[in-house]
Amino acid sequence: MNLQAQETVVGFIGIGVMGRSMASHLMAAGYPLNIYNRTQAKAEELLDRGASWRESPAAVAAHSEIIITMLGYPRDVEEVYLGPEGLLAHCRTGSVVIDMTTSSPQLAEKIAAAARQVGIAALDAPVSGGDIGAREGTLSIMVGGERNTFEQVRPLLACMGKNIVFQGTAGSGQHCKMANQIAIASTMMGVCEAMVYAEKAGLTPETVLESIASGAAGSWSLSNLAPRMLAGDLEPGFYVKHFIKDMNIALESSEEIGLSAQGLALAKSMYDRLAAAGDGELGTQALYKAYR
Amino acid sequence: MNLQAQETVVGFIGIGVMGRSMASHLMAAGYPLNIYNRTQAKAEELLDRGASWRESPAAVAAHSEIIITMLGYPRDVEEVYLGPEGLLAHCRTGSVVIDMTTSSPQLAEKIAAAARQVGIAALDAPVSGGDIGAREGTLSIMVGGERNTFEQVRPLLACMGKNIVFQGTAGSGQHCKMANQIAIASTMMGVCEAMVYAEKAGLTPETVLESIASGAAGSWSLSNLAPRMLAGDLEPGFYVKHFIKDMNIALESSEEIGLSAQGLALAKSMYDRLAAAGDGELGTQALYKAYR
Repeated sequence: MNLQAQETVVGFIGIGVMGRSMASHLMAAGYPLNIYNRTQAKAEELLDRGASWRESPAAVAAHSEIIITMLGYPRDVEEVYLGPEGLLAHCRTGSVVIDMTTSSPQLAEKIAAAARQVGIAALDAPVSGGDIGAREGTLSIMVGGERNTFEQVRPLLACMGKNIVFQGTAGSGQHCKMANQIAIASTMMGVCEAMVYAEKAGLTPETVLESIASGAAGSWSLSNLAPRMLAGDLEPGFYVKHFIKDMNIALESSEEIGLSAQGLALAKSMYDRLAAAGDGELGTQALYKAYR
Repeated sequence: MNLQAQETVVGFIGIGVMGRSMASHLMAAGYPLNIYNRTQAKAEELLDRGASWRESPAAVAAHSEIIITMLGYPRDVEEVYLGPEGLLAHCRTGSVVIDMTTSSPQLAEKIAAAARQVGIAALDAPVSGGDIGAREGTLSIMVGGERNTFEQVRPLLACMGKNIVFQGTAGSGQHCKMANQIAIASTMMGVCEAMVYAEKAGLTPETVLESIASGAAGSWSLSNLAPRMLAGDLEPGFYVKHFIKDMNIALESSEEIGLSAQGLALAKSMYDRLAAAGDGELGTQALYKAYR
């Protein structure tokens, strides 16, 4: 337990699969926690362990010094931060708000500017590493905002992640996460095409992996997701529907900054077809079905 | 030096950057070597070390028990194997021929069938690992053909590579190599799009790599080629023009086996544009220029 932690009251909004693990690490480190979630039932475990329930984001804001959000879509982020019952209207001056949702870089910039106007510091700090990274406290955290603010809350971020990197001004954390998703999108096409090619060519794809997984064709997706797709295991490590959400943000943002991300656009169109066929609740490795 | 090696006379045709290193390992292991190359000057170093020069593929065939080829394009493979002065017309019965060129799986099947008819065993055994893998004897070797033949020549392959995997019947080595190139093609798009996105978004791409290279977006290309592209180093580890050759084979083969490899097709179209702009002699990491 971190003794200094006991003096800093933290708010946590968004107690889903990721948020629950992340908030849990903060409690274990000694931070008193105010929590809010749309569905209160999901917060029971944390409440049993001593977290305080608050009835709204506004109530979390009124009782906390640092507020973390881990939400779903950019529209949720916009409402929680900028809505009439939102954080910026109710946070105390001098508070720090940290959005760890994967969300729009442009929205992160907008929130940071609006926060500055009311004397609040805002960071965007999306993560990668998924539910396992959240559970084990090994997330990669990509941070945008003021560097001083980042340094101030770094001990708190360190409870939840291992690879914590300051990426630049407001929005830079989200931009970095978009770069991450953009790299994954086309890599997944390559992995699926390679595996389905092997299968259709009459090879044993598992034996092909022995030849290619550790060389220049190697990737996290090839080593970790290809074996799952070959075994017919399409359980979500990362949901198709969530990946589509991220790729939509990445495509909009690419357009805004003048990048024609053709691989990303193609990958998204293939995932869109997968979701349209009812596979949005599967893991991203289900893309190989689109090639078979 | 391998004592048994001294009793097996090996022929080696195609003394380029890769072939020279590979043949050199065979000599070091004690195999007497007959060599032929279109440009004799490139063979000088091996001749100085005791290899025997032969005037044609036919002459290599006449004096060797096992013949290895490391050529350029499928048309070269076809000529050296099936032409009037080629290997199949001149090999001794009971010889083994091994094509280590990255070439067409369908051509490999054709050669194996023709070889069988004249009492010769043929393997297709393309490699990955590039010039460094060839120099260090750490190539990944993907083998198609008869398993008995593979077991017979395995000690010889082991002089040149480390990860030596039997993939199946004739053509399977080439199919495996195609799967390798297919995985690389789209992964390279993802890597380039991610890095150019980061740059255009105003981030420091090297700092983005710190956040994303070791997670789910990670790949050999992201770790090894992205830093080179960011440093402006476009020297060929692997030539754009050679990658295009491989992608052409992969696309033809995909069509033949009924796979619509859209990521591969898109990647090839982008590399084609790069080559058309005069960048065929650069390394594959030059693809990021197409996005800037």
